[in-house]
Formats: sequence, structure tokens, C-alpha cells
Amino acid sequence: MSDAPRPGEAIAETSLAEDARLTFIGRLSTPWRERGDCPRQGSVDGPECRVEVFPRWQAALDGLERFEELELLYWMDQARRDLLTQFPAHLSAPRGTFALRSPARPNPIATSRVRLIGISGRMLTVRGLDCVDGTPLLDIKPDRCAFMRRG
Amino acid sequence: MSDAPRPGEAIAETSLAEDARLTFIGRLSTPWRERGDCPRQGSVDGPECRVEVFPRWQAALDGLERFEELELLYWMDQARRDLLTQFPAHLSAPRGTFALRSPARPNPIATSRVRLIGISGRMLTVRGLDCVDGTPLLDIKPDRCAFMRRG
Repeated sequence: MSDAPRPGEAIAETSLAEDARLTFIGRLSTPWRERGDCPRQGSVDGPECRVEVFPRWQAALDGLERFEELELLYWMDQARRDLLTQFPAHLSAPRGTFALRSPARPNPIATSRVRLIGISGRMLTVRGLDCVDGTPLLDIKPDRCAFMRRG
Repeated sequence: MSDAPRPGEAIAETSLAEDARLTFIGRLSTPWRERGDCPRQGSVDGPECRVEVFPRWQAALDGLERFEELELLYWMDQARRDLLTQFPAHLSAPRGTFALRSPARPNPIATSRVRLIGISGRMLTVRGLDCVDGTPLLDIKPDRCAFMRRG
């Protein structure tokens, strides 16, 4: 997958301001080795994936097992950050970056709703991811619609 | 609102690694001047709020008007980042940070689903925010469930 802009795409004048800093809290293991292999959007019926939470954050998982649906935030570290408009293959005309859920955006943070299959220590099993194997994890939250409880 | 941890809350050993950098793309105007005034979760029936997108990103709004529901990501810049467990007033026992949607988390990124009321240039009017006036904006995406189109 080339990073060169396509006809109809526009690029912001950079460099980007550096206004805040992120810390990676874990890492995602998925079946997709390359960006081109990833589904366009995850499905809670998709394959099982693994979420490794780094040891220092393990205590922050306490009580997570009561939720069936989680929201994961992760960092699309291979995406370019300067595209203003994009021309995805499934559209007939270019569109603004904020009118797309493409990984390429000024802050390449993906949000996915996943189904929690199980927790063992600091390893979670989930369904619903759509990203490349090894993607850095930023956050885990109960899904905002998750009122169902497990067990 | 004090930042001191409450009984039952636990704190991570820091300092935090600095793994990636964010750029603020805009700013949110809301009716809430202090953290203690904010609703616990936004509602699409809540008050109208304004979203200012900084000039360099205006072209990235192209096509956004077709979506009725958006997902906004913003940076809770007043939140502490080292809490492993938290004891919110509405719970009867402490709970891990990742089992809560509290602003206090290693990467204090909020995600909210909002209703788009209107767009004028690089100013959006939305309903559904829950944050302090002046909160920095990180991203705008079509909501992942947003298949309804406007106009």
C-alpha cells in the first residue's frame, strides 16, 4: 500500500503542532499482518483477537469482566497525518478526512466497539478489531451503550 | 474538585512513557465552566455546543454535512493520568480505571457521540457534549453507526 496521495486528495501544510503526549498501555494481536489485509470496519462477529495490557496497568482492569461490550482506542501508527481530503476506492469523489473513518487523520486514533470474550490476568480476548497486528493500545472503556453485564 | 486520590484509589508508578504526540485540531465551547458542573455523560438532547475547527483543517470538513451523528474525540486536559483504581461517588466500591469512563485515565481521551445541528465554515453546532468549556479537540469522525444521511 503506497503512502503517496491519490488524484483528488489534498495535504495540509505541516509540521504538526505537538500539543499533548500519549503513552501506549498495551498492544493488539490480530490476524492481519499488512494494512491492506485489514477489514474496513471490525465486526463483533469477526475473529478472536488478543489484547495485551502492559504490567503497570494491570490493576486498572479490575471490574472489567462485568462488561460485555468495550470501546478500545488504538494508535494507527502507520497512517499519514496530513491528508485534508481523501479518495477511498469505495467512493466516487474525494471527501474530507473528518467525513471518513479512514486511519489517515491528524491524530490517527481508532475507536472500535468490541465484544469481550474473556480475561486472563492482563490478557483479554475480544472480537471486533480491524487493525494490523502489533497496533499500540491507548485506552479501554466500557462501551457507552454497555448496560449489559456478564455473570 | 480536588485531585487528591480518595480512599480505595490506587496510583500507578510513573513517569509515563511518551510514545506518540497529539496535535489539537480545534476547541469545544460548552456551557460548563468547571469540571464539577459537567454532566456525567453527554446526551444528544443536551444543550447546543460549538465546535471550532482550526483554519488549517477546514478542508477536512468537506462532506461532513451528510452525517447526522458524529463521534468527537477530545483531550481531557485537566484529568490526572496515574489512577489505577477509582472510587466514583456513584459506586459502592473502587473499580479499575479501564472499567470506568471517568476522564482520569492514562490517555485522557474522551469519545462522545453527538448530533450535528449545523455547519458554518469551520464552526459546527452539536448536541451531546459533556466537557468543560475550552476542551481541546482531537478528531471528528462519522459515528460508526451513522448510516442516516442529511438532506
